[in-house]
Amino acid sequence: MVQPKQLWHRVLAVRNAGPLVHNITNYVVMNNTANALLAVGASPVMAHAHEEMNDMVSIAGALVVNIGTLDAYWVESMQKAILQAKNLQKPWVLDPVGAGASAYRNTVLIQLLHTHTPSVIRGNASEIMSLAHTSAATKGVDSVHTSEQALRAAAAVSNTFDCVVCVSGETDFIVYKDTITGVSNGSPLMTRVTGLGCTASAITGAFCAVAEGHYTEATIAAMALMGIAGELAAEKAAGPGTLQLHFLDALYNITEEDFVARIKLSAHDAV
Amino acid sequence: MVQPKQLWHRVLAVRNAGPLVHNITNYVVMNNTANALLAVGASPVMAHAHEEMNDMVSIAGALVVNIGTLDAYWVESMQKAILQAKNLQKPWVLDPVGAGASAYRNTVLIQLLHTHTPSVIRGNASEIMSLAHTSAATKGVDSVHTSEQALRAAAAVSNTFDCVVCVSGETDFIVYKDTITGVSNGSPLMTRVTGLGCTASAITGAFCAVAEGHYTEATIAAMALMGIAGELAAEKAAGPGTLQLHFLDALYNITEEDFVARIKLSAHDAV
Amino acid sequence: MVQPKQLWHRVLAVRNAGPLVHNITNYVVMNNTANALLAVGASPVMAHAHEEMNDMVSIAGALVVNIGTLDAYWVESMQKAILQAKNLQKPWVLDPVGAGASAYRNTVLIQLLHTHTPSVIRGNASEIMSLAHTSAATKGVDSVHTSEQALRAAAAVSNTFDCVVCVSGETDFIVYKDTITGVSNGSPLMTRVTGLGCTASAITGAFCAVAEGHYTEATIAAMALMGIAGELAAEKAAGPGTLQLHFLDALYNITEEDFVARIKLSAHDAV
Repeated sequence: MVQPKQLWHRVLAVRNAGPLVHNITNYVVMNNTANALLAVGASPVMAHAHEEMNDMVSIAGALVVNIGTLDAYWVESMQKAILQAKNLQKPWVLDPVGAGASAYRNTVLIQLLHTHTPSVIRGNASEIMSLAHTSAATKGVDSVHTSEQALRAAAAVSNTFDCVVCVSGETDFIVYKDTITGVSNGSPLMTRVTGLGCTASAITGAFCAVAEGHYTEATIAAMALMGIAGELAAEKAAGPGTLQLHFLDALYNITEEDFVARIKLSAHDAV
Repeated sequence: MVQPKQLWHRVLAVRNAGPLVHNITNYVVMNNTANALLAVGASPVMAHAHEEMNDMVSIAGALVVNIGTLDAYWVESMQKAILQAKNLQKPWVLDPVGAGASAYRNTVLIQLLHTHTPSVIRGNASEIMSLAHTSAATKGVDSVHTSEQALRAAAAVSNTFDCVVCVSGETDFIVYKDTITGVSNGSPLMTRVTGLGCTASAITGAFCAVAEGHYTEATIAAMALMGIAGELAAEKAAGPGTLQLHFLDALYNITEEDFVARIKLSAHDAV
Repeated sequence: MVQPKQLWHRVLAVRNAGPLVHNITNYVVMNNTANALLAVGASPVMAHAHEEMNDMVSIAGALVVNIGTLDAYWVESMQKAILQAKNLQKPWVLDPVGAGASAYRNTVLIQLLHTHTPSVIRGNASEIMSLAHTSAATKGVDSVHTSEQALRAAAAVSNTFDCVVCVSGETDFIVYKDTITGVSNGSPLMTRVTGLGCTASAITGAFCAVAEGHYTEATIAAMALMGIAGELAAEKAAGPGTLQLHFLDALYNITEEDFVARIKLSAHDAV
């Protein structure tokens, strides 16, 4: 299993390289994800005009596509950007927000996945299960399943698309085919703040940008950073409002000591 | 007059049921309103693609339509969603942001109101007066009138559309035809934070989702919760920045004791 | 050189007049800029529907155009609004976010600048240099140049368009043709919060609305207020998360004493 110190070096790699991450994401979380990317040392750009998708992906280190508030124009933006990521062999991360909540989202997700296979797919249990067609029941954009219940679906999706799949939950599972790593950091209060899943996907993008193809490890590092920053923030927060701000502070201030002492990793057998 | 304890049970009903609220709202407040809905125990979904309006309204307990940053595409989204709410007999809340600020907004509001009568309309005094055509003067999205000045307009709008009308202000008035209830909670600092009116409408949506048709009482409970949370937050805040976060914390942490001790209700005669 | 006390009177003028500022800005920062405008005492409206651009500019004291997340529809909104600002002789501020990051942005900027010359252009060094065609290298929306390196470009842009040019950086330079004023307030932590440049442009809009044509001085006052509020916030903040909130509090609470004691102005020779 990957060592905490090795994961910490990935945190430092983002801080040192300051990769530009191109986000095509939803209106609800644009501000938070931009701030989270800045807090970890990356540089965010949010852009969706068809005319500039090629240029933006060209200058970015990674692309993050999040379908939270999709519509036809934005879906075309996503497709253009994904195609350019394919052409330039840049990593891209898919956040299938609300997969299963509408037939339209399911159709769009199939289109995006077939445009070019993502480096990483990160979603909650219901979303990943919906992607694997094992379940279509979700509650809007919130999960009604535990991450454990989605493990079989995650492995199936990983095998189908040959990509890393991350299922967020009380324990986050990072799945690549038969390899499953658990990250059990975080705080329950994080579920009462909107967009922390989307933030996890954006940060995963930053880690992939400097991963030189090691996307499984990059995703584990990103999820561990998210969870540990959430724990540090929850200790100072009086509720979900103050949690948000302390979370950004923690992303920015986190030290190797905190990271290594707190990280909770586990290896799991294929399901 | 409704009893404080009865209103508190509506707060608990939202926490227990965790209703999904579908918001078609403006770009400025999407993040805040999503966070406020999570803080009161509801589950927000923001979606506007024409292709998924039917699906989203189907899985939601209530619809909230806010015209703050409208354009032609979004107006069509709103109409589709309102029609589906009509078909499925789900409650919907209208926030007529900036009514009277442009001829376009007035035209759109008439269209939306005639698509299907809302369960609740919540706006500031200028907006409600504009809706009643008693005044077209507003200052962008901020009110230039007191809530008292809008009472006659509120009653007229309530009678015309047979719905609850809530006029926000120093005292919030919840009007259903000839019945007027005042809620005098809140803090002046709340007017220096963007989108707290929009948040009030979103929370009213959550309360309507579990109201079983008692929309007047649901709206009174929602406005009381907003105002009391604002007071609790203002006591801790050093300005409008910190107020926002403490407000979300207060929505999440508020107890029956706080709620019942602080609530300021009043009954008013028809004007 | 302008006196600190004179600049403070411009802060008071905004508080007293409470000008309505019409923003056509990007999705990432809409919430922050609305809150910052409220905190300085102005009144924000965000609107982009083609049908209401004339009405919104008519009731506003100033227009702010920010191309951060542009697309074809929004560019047309911007053009309509700028034309109306021209017709009604209202000040408008351009924030050329990401100038040079894509060919499309450059084309759009030329269109906007030729629709009607802005009162003020505010950008980072890379953006201003890109506008002057002295450099096309940027890193997405973040600058790779210091503000000093952009002084020649700023003067060129100011001369070409006969407008005030503000280059943000460690020192902000406010340039009108051969007159250069430096404002050296602020905190490095501000670069880790998204949208503070956009906020500076929005606030500059509020100051221009009450400037009676004195746009250079209005811009100096706006940038000094930004920088000093940032310093006050940084002294209380534990990271970029809490900085945001303390920044809004500081904008709202700042006193003449703080302003005059902290302001760092400098006069510079033309380059």
